[in-house]
Amino acid sequence: MARWEPDSRGRLEQAALALYGERGFENTTVAEIAARAGLTERTFFRYFADKREVLFWGAGALQELLVSAVASAPDSAAPIDAVAAALEAAGALLQERREFALQRQTVIAANTELQERELVKLASLSAALAGTLRRRGVSDTAASLTAEAGIAVFKIAFERWVNESNQRDLPQLIRESFDELKAVTAGK
Amino acid sequence: MARWEPDSRGRLEQAALALYGERGFENTTVAEIAARAGLTERTFFRYFADKREVLFWGAGALQELLVSAVASAPDSAAPIDAVAAALEAAGALLQERREFALQRQTVIAANTELQERELVKLASLSAALAGTLRRRGVSDTAASLTAEAGIAVFKIAFERWVNESNQRDLPQLIRESFDELKAVTAGK
Repeated sequence: MARWEPDSRGRLEQAALALYGERGFENTTVAEIAARAGLTERTFFRYFADKREVLFWGAGALQELLVSAVASAPDSAAPIDAVAAALEAAGALLQERREFALQRQTVIAANTELQERELVKLASLSAALAGTLRRRGVSDTAASLTAEAGIAVFKIAFERWVNESNQRDLPQLIRESFDELKAVTAGK
Repeated sequence: MARWEPDSRGRLEQAALALYGERGFENTTVAEIAARAGLTERTFFRYFADKREVLFWGAGALQELLVSAVASAPDSAAPIDAVAAALEAAGALLQERREFALQRQTVIAANTELQERELVKLASLSAALAGTLRRRGVSDTAASLTAEAGIAVFKIAFERWVNESNQRDLPQLIRESFDELKAVTAGK
């Protein structure tokens, strides 16, 4: 394989996103994705359990990144600041895959089942963050509230990033949204 | 019908909750619920579209209550305080149905599909609250953040209410959780 060729996973991902965009997630088959990528179905299933996983396989890596960033924050960091820094780091990675993120978002917005799956993913991220905060000694309720607030900020910053035409980068939008959360909860 | 008999909807609800608890949501049929309630399947379908709706029919009323409470808050109320007051009012209603809420929670905790449905319900409540805040002149991002933060508080207060043995009432737990949210977002 020539060096400049994307790997099979990347080719399958690109083919799947293109097809979901063209004909809808529900009307696309694994056989079509594999054919578009110039690969076999068997190769597809080496990377993905099903066509939905093409959209969600990154969730595990995202969760690991967030958890390890919060776990390794300085002891002096307030929980909300540890979570904010972790989400900004995640935002910087997503920023590098903006094209993919936009395509993916369009596919998800068009399908109720995928939207539900996205909510489940965010709830898992929140639970993982809360668990990590508890292991840092944060009390039960404060850990849950901080994690939920962080995920809410992330979700809203992500929506702005995807929908606004002003092209600010995602880490910056996450930072701004955290500041705005502080303002609204302070009753401003 | 004697005056002390619960209405048909209430009887069906009680029968359904009892059966879901005994044999699991997925192993209960509408025919069994109707039989347990001493009613016909036809009567069941006059009140509920399916067996899942027994657990979710209250969501519409909850949403209306929250929206109208936020819409009618004094102009001087900060958005977060309008949302907090609305959620406390909703909490007071749920407090009166504590037994039902506990049974319902046990059923939902045992079933992934129902948990997903619950997440979708909470996301709808958040979107409805954000829309109401926007109509009060709150900016787009502040409205979304306030609504998401409010729903996060509600969710966490509800979990404490259901799981803690200390029997504090739900409006009080909602109030305390809002105060704790203010503390954690302030970096305390």
